[in-house]
Amino acid sequence: MTLLQNPVNKFNIVSTKDEHPGDKRFFQCSGPFDLEHLSTVSDTKIVAARSGKSITSFTGIAPLQAATECEISFLDNKRYLPLLAETKAGIVIISPAFVEKVPDDSIALVTSRPYLAWAKIASLFYPKQKAQSGIHPTAFIDPTADIDSSVEVGPFAVIMPHVKIGKGSIIGAHAVIEQGVEIGDYCCIGSHVSLSHALLGNRVVLYPGCRIGQDGFGFAISESGFITVPQVGRVILKNDVEVGANSTIDRGSIRDTIIGEGSRLDNLVQIGHNVQMGRCCIVVSQAGISGSTQLGDFVTIAAQAGLIGHIHIGDHARIGAQCGVMSDVESKSDVIGSPAMPFREFFRNVAVLRKIAKKSYKIR
Amino acid sequence: MTLLQNPVNKFNIVSTKDEHPGDKRFFQCSGPFDLEHLSTVSDTKIVAARSGKSITSFTGIAPLQAATECEISFLDNKRYLPLLAETKAGIVIISPAFVEKVPDDSIALVTSRPYLAWAKIASLFYPKQKAQSGIHPTAFIDPTADIDSSVEVGPFAVIMPHVKIGKGSIIGAHAVIEQGVEIGDYCCIGSHVSLSHALLGNRVVLYPGCRIGQDGFGFAISESGFITVPQVGRVILKNDVEVGANSTIDRGSIRDTIIGEGSRLDNLVQIGHNVQMGRCCIVVSQAGISGSTQLGDFVTIAAQAGLIGHIHIGDHARIGAQCGVMSDVESKSDVIGSPAMPFREFFRNVAVLRKIAKKSYKIR
Amino acid sequence: MTLLQNPVNKFNIVSTKDEHPGDKRFFQCSGPFDLEHLSTVSDTKIVAARSGKSITSFTGIAPLQAATECEISFLDNKRYLPLLAETKAGIVIISPAFVEKVPDDSIALVTSRPYLAWAKIASLFYPKQKAQSGIHPTAFIDPTADIDSSVEVGPFAVIMPHVKIGKGSIIGAHAVIEQGVEIGDYCCIGSHVSLSHALLGNRVVLYPGCRIGQDGFGFAISESGFITVPQVGRVILKNDVEVGANSTIDRGSIRDTIIGEGSRLDNLVQIGHNVQMGRCCIVVSQAGISGSTQLGDFVTIAAQAGLIGHIHIGDHARIGAQCGVMSDVESKSDVIGSPAMPFREFFRNVAVLRKIAKKSYKIR
Repeated sequence: MTLLQNPVNKFNIVSTKDEHPGDKRFFQCSGPFDLEHLSTVSDTKIVAARSGKSITSFTGIAPLQAATECEISFLDNKRYLPLLAETKAGIVIISPAFVEKVPDDSIALVTSRPYLAWAKIASLFYPKQKAQSGIHPTAFIDPTADIDSSVEVGPFAVIMPHVKIGKGSIIGAHAVIEQGVEIGDYCCIGSHVSLSHALLGNRVVLYPGCRIGQDGFGFAISESGFITVPQVGRVILKNDVEVGANSTIDRGSIRDTIIGEGSRLDNLVQIGHNVQMGRCCIVVSQAGISGSTQLGDFVTIAAQAGLIGHIHIGDHARIGAQCGVMSDVESKSDVIGSPAMPFREFFRNVAVLRKIAKKSYKIR
Repeated sequence: MTLLQNPVNKFNIVSTKDEHPGDKRFFQCSGPFDLEHLSTVSDTKIVAARSGKSITSFTGIAPLQAATECEISFLDNKRYLPLLAETKAGIVIISPAFVEKVPDDSIALVTSRPYLAWAKIASLFYPKQKAQSGIHPTAFIDPTADIDSSVEVGPFAVIMPHVKIGKGSIIGAHAVIEQGVEIGDYCCIGSHVSLSHALLGNRVVLYPGCRIGQDGFGFAISESGFITVPQVGRVILKNDVEVGANSTIDRGSIRDTIIGEGSRLDNLVQIGHNVQMGRCCIVVSQAGISGSTQLGDFVTIAAQAGLIGHIHIGDHARIGAQCGVMSDVESKSDVIGSPAMPFREFFRNVAVLRKIAKKSYKIR
Repeated sequence: MTLLQNPVNKFNIVSTKDEHPGDKRFFQCSGPFDLEHLSTVSDTKIVAARSGKSITSFTGIAPLQAATECEISFLDNKRYLPLLAETKAGIVIISPAFVEKVPDDSIALVTSRPYLAWAKIASLFYPKQKAQSGIHPTAFIDPTADIDSSVEVGPFAVIMPHVKIGKGSIIGAHAVIEQGVEIGDYCCIGSHVSLSHALLGNRVVLYPGCRIGQDGFGFAISESGFITVPQVGRVILKNDVEVGANSTIDRGSIRDTIIGEGSRLDNLVQIGHNVQMGRCCIVVSQAGISGSTQLGDFVTIAAQAGLIGHIHIGDHARIGAQCGVMSDVESKSDVIGSPAMPFREFFRNVAVLRKIAKKSYKIR
């Protein structure tokens, strides 16, 4: 098949080969920064370029394959070692194990946690967006709302009665903040967010299109159909919580749905009513947690995993991708499979079944 | 790790220990109601407090751990028996099996279906939201739309030509009702809903962000790329249908996509074109039904299950969580696993494989 | 249970028995077209009605069970052969294998690819919607935006500074196009779409509620909590890409997220940062692709499948429904299961396990 020949693209989209991050149409880059400062900020050790080359001022960040001698790159995954060999980057952030593999012309910034160092340096060049205080003339704000003067409110945002919004927060275009909602300081509410029956701490980030505070899926079965159970709890998002695009968090039925401090939810995640999640949990995209389930602190739930309701997941437990969890999970344990079982058991089952099936059938 | 020390929260979020439902910022509580009335409404039998305590007027509802002597609670799940022992609730709705476990100071309202009784009593204190007739000044309404004078239309809602909306319906902020759509009486269309090519019965509830009536995923493969197949059916949502937040229902390609009366879909559910669903089906969050599949009445599809297209699911069938259904399912059968199989077979397979694998490997 | 008796529906929803597509409230039908033209457009061979009946002008399309003698239908799936026997359709598009089964009064249009012929004929009667040039008076357009005069912009759409939009494009109600975004010619941006940090080719179609260009899920773990990694890449949607309702595509972290020409994503799909997808890939609903994974051309990913990050999927590979892919997949291979394995191996495993388990337990 010869598909879509001769495509002509009006805006001249760049090739994927040597793409450069930080397109000026979308991003504003700080800097330059000097080597000493970069090392200090990232808590890394400077190892000079073997060739003696000594550039001292750096203007930006880029991936290994695109970085120039004035830019910083990093290596965090062995899969990309071939790109390291070819890089022109002025600086490479790297773990001690691979420092010998850095090209002769590059300076190494060495640390046992290169991705953390990268986060710090990238944040130096691209600091977090700040609120541009002011209310867009098209926004609708109820006069009883209590909004700090430093808040930024985007086009067509709706802020209903008795809402409170703390200093430095940003309310995106088309966000709807329903009656009585409270939002702390330095929060960022994305475009098209629906937010009701909720109390938010500080620095909470809601991505576009997430739905927070709607009724949970609660009804009783009667002879004349389903009877809705009023959902009279709230959603509590504590400090530093982030919720991904188009994710949904139902409010509690009779207690609160709570997301603990610093927890991060990816896109298209579902959180049922009364779920209570501890601090610094991670829930990857398309995972779902059913009603009244409780998570401890530092729990990780990988993509597309599902948890039934009314169970308890201990601190530091890790739930694998696509895992189906039907019962409590102990602290620090790692489970995968549907139904969930320890990682070791799951992969043992897979190996044994493959062996037996091969023997039984002897196909080719 | 010591994360996020000394968090300060501007709005003084209450602790999770003794949370109380019905936060006045978000909910309005009716009442008080007396014991006789509560018993009548909920069709339950009064069993007096063993201590002789006799409060007769009740002001609200709460979970077992938070309820006071003027409040009503319920027990519906054995897991929470320890909370029953400690409760201060004035009334506990409970099944005959556990009535002896109700504390001495509490009145029991006894029924074989405590959750249904709970639904009725909770609805007494928190009745369904009614339309506040009127059109928000920021809404855009096409002059050809036929909207009952009792309808409530929220900020920035868009109502396109020839739309009809029946009495007592509520159209949320930022909802977009496309040309020709018909909405029955007492419907509730959530904020940010997209609704096109659809006919809705009465009392239909659409949660925020659901997408109803867009093109299905239909295209043919040709030498010059994919050719879109026009989707010229509709979406029919019959009386009392509910569709969860951010769920998607594609319109039919050449017949209609139909959701039968009283059926309830949770959040992030996907319904393909031409799906036809009977009465009172339940589809739990993140489940998906592919194009042209037909469901009978009272079918239950648990979370994250997936059904391929062009199959038939019989009345009262139950599809387990994460189930992958590739062929027809008979009435009243219960299936789980991917590919789907009877519950009994699935759990037998799991047990046998575990046993064999343990033997083969003898790991610890 | 007798549920929901005597439902009365104000708007008289038609029965499902003889539904007819193309409801005039929602669709405008072209035509009539004569037989020769239909045959030419669809590249099919005319086989006259055995009864000698000879209608030559046709007014529309319909499914087998509803089509009249002036209408065209098609058969593409053996499951529907019983409907073919009963059809009153004037024309049936059909493969050579079934041409004998067409009723005596119907003309057959014969082709080895009936669904493709159907797509072409249906598109004749229902051509693609064209932009009605003009900007809705309620839309907010930044004066620095460069919008072709032929563009249609819907109610309450938001177009931020320096956006460019090519000729014939449609921007739906409530869409938000953030700063610097470039949209090619003849694109269609659905209602409630959020679009940022993105460059779109021509004829790109975004369905309602999809989220394009938000931050990816990137953060490093430190002693004081998670540190967000700035996401400074873009999203590139090449010519003819389509993205389903409520799907989410994160922008790149340091390179671009790229969807290749002609690729089609269904509803509720998640695409992580830095994913690079080739031409004419298909991603069915609720599937997810984790960060930095690369797909070749013509890859098919079925519903609810999940791919981990940093892997490579070869051209023409097919990933089955609910598949969990944890490692590279070779070109042209078909995998299914979690973890992914060849189709043949998967179904062999299923069969062998069932046999062994049955033997072990001998239940009934």
